[in-house]
Amino acid sequence: MDPPVHAALFDRAALDRLTALADTDPSLVVRDFTDPAAADALAEAEALLTGWGCPPLTPEALARMPRLRTVIHAAGSVKHHVTDACWDRGITVACAATVNAVPVAEYTVAAILFSGKRVLHAARVYREKRTWVNALDVIGTGGNHRHTVGIVGASRIGRRVAELLRPYDMRVLLHDPYADQDEVRALGAHPVSLDVLAAQSDTVTIHAPELPETHHLFDRGRLALLRDGATLVNTARGSLVDTAALTEELVSGRLNAVLDVTDPEILPPDSPLYDLPNVLLTPHIAGSLGNELGRMTNAALDELERYASGLPYADPVHPEQLTRSA
Amino acid sequence: MDPPVHAALFDRAALDRLTALADTDPSLVVRDFTDPAAADALAEAEALLTGWGCPPLTPEALARMPRLRTVIHAAGSVKHHVTDACWDRGITVACAATVNAVPVAEYTVAAILFSGKRVLHAARVYREKRTWVNALDVIGTGGNHRHTVGIVGASRIGRRVAELLRPYDMRVLLHDPYADQDEVRALGAHPVSLDVLAAQSDTVTIHAPELPETHHLFDRGRLALLRDGATLVNTARGSLVDTAALTEELVSGRLNAVLDVTDPEILPPDSPLYDLPNVLLTPHIAGSLGNELGRMTNAALDELERYASGLPYADPVHPEQLTRSA
Repeated sequence: MDPPVHAALFDRAALDRLTALADTDPSLVVRDFTDPAAADALAEAEALLTGWGCPPLTPEALARMPRLRTVIHAAGSVKHHVTDACWDRGITVACAATVNAVPVAEYTVAAILFSGKRVLHAARVYREKRTWVNALDVIGTGGNHRHTVGIVGASRIGRRVAELLRPYDMRVLLHDPYADQDEVRALGAHPVSLDVLAAQSDTVTIHAPELPETHHLFDRGRLALLRDGATLVNTARGSLVDTAALTEELVSGRLNAVLDVTDPEILPPDSPLYDLPNVLLTPHIAGSLGNELGRMTNAALDELERYASGLPYADPVHPEQLTRSA
Repeated sequence: MDPPVHAALFDRAALDRLTALADTDPSLVVRDFTDPAAADALAEAEALLTGWGCPPLTPEALARMPRLRTVIHAAGSVKHHVTDACWDRGITVACAATVNAVPVAEYTVAAILFSGKRVLHAARVYREKRTWVNALDVIGTGGNHRHTVGIVGASRIGRRVAELLRPYDMRVLLHDPYADQDEVRALGAHPVSLDVLAAQSDTVTIHAPELPETHHLFDRGRLALLRDGATLVNTARGSLVDTAALTEELVSGRLNAVLDVTDPEILPPDSPLYDLPNVLLTPHIAGSLGNELGRMTNAALDELERYASGLPYADPVHPEQLTRSA
């Protein structure tokens, strides 16, 4: 992983736990599998503990790790580094996707509540006017009573959003082509088609993986199905939305958006999305950061402890999942 | 109530429900008890259904309503219009404070999640830089894992905030001089003194009533107890905080704030609070607005139905409560 990521993930207590669990040199952080300084450790390694910035585990990289049996990823998706060569070798993989879902779902719930109530709009109007603001007018038809939220994807994050929305007076729709309908209902959500979800939701929140079949899932036509004044929340991947079409809808003021990811990931400096009053744009922060990193570290160390004890992983990754998940 | 409030509270369905429950002229909205057009209706009225803008029920006003037996308020606090003269006459009072607590608690939860994660800070940095932002740096030590939230006041709103925070990995402290400690623990919170709460919380949220003894509850000295980088959320009343002292702490950047109320209620145009990057300032919108008004209307009509059926109110107001609550 990248050394700054390592520094953020491992405080003293986590390093102590790691060294108690494994025969490891906690000062060795590998960012390049061809680094001569790492060669001896890689030659001996039975388990790799990976994080953001881990290079791909290519056949060449794996050839340097003849004893490698497992990869434990202290983050969400393993798609950047776990290759077919890992599966071919029978290497097992675990990740921290379940605990990384927590902060993303929390960001989403806050985004739904604030956008439903038009909180940032009201703040802007008050800042501009600097005098009494008619709250009835500024909120208009907003508010979170009987608000309809459409969740796209029964992923770990999508499911957790549904669970976190249970205490609110909201109607939750959920679309996932692979989810069991009874399971969706057990989450307190109504299983619907994507077009029904788009047409009926006050807020649509995307929690589907980046896959060939989800590219531009929200294209121009599907965005046009959204209600006037609806809000699109995207904390998944930018490519699921046609950015040009969404930008038109946002510039016109017909839709609102909360975007933690975009396509391209860093928008060009002249993108209107930076300044539009109906857009909250954040730099891919919904996942684990700050004190939330420690939760991923502990989840990864929990998996390492299970591995060392011969127990099955709590959050295993299987190759067939990766065609359907993040 | 004010006619625009009436228009916002009563849609067609609510008017139909009202006229089915009571002998009433739904076109008569009284904003002034001395209005001759209202005289006959007031002379006959057994129940008043009140809302924002209702004038005080002074002895003179009550003299025009010799048959009045009850007041049902389709909003939170009755302190603006229910006077001692009402209690002296034995008039019963109900309110919609329990359902009005819902949107305030929702705003608060979203404010806690967004401020804990430094979401608006990250959005601002990204908008200013318009290039790659190091998320590890921009979030720094933020995040909502093992965040400590201090709730000031076990009011309807304070209790609901505690309940809504249960699914999160947060430590919740609660201070209320009148709350039973076991009841506080049953909410999943730790009962503490106000000074301990101030010193240990990452976010402090105020849900105490405006009373002589709560004036400047957060004065200069108590604000100084707050941790560096802590956030103060106030959706209660501005007078509970010494605005001048808080402004100094916010201008210095030591604290952050989410303020839906201030003292004075409308800040002077040159107040730095309008523009500070570490302050989210909203114009008293956390309570019921937009579609949330219909929830208050239905709660008031539920009480009217109970009254008509001889049942006790679900949300009665007793005079002795008013010395301790909003």
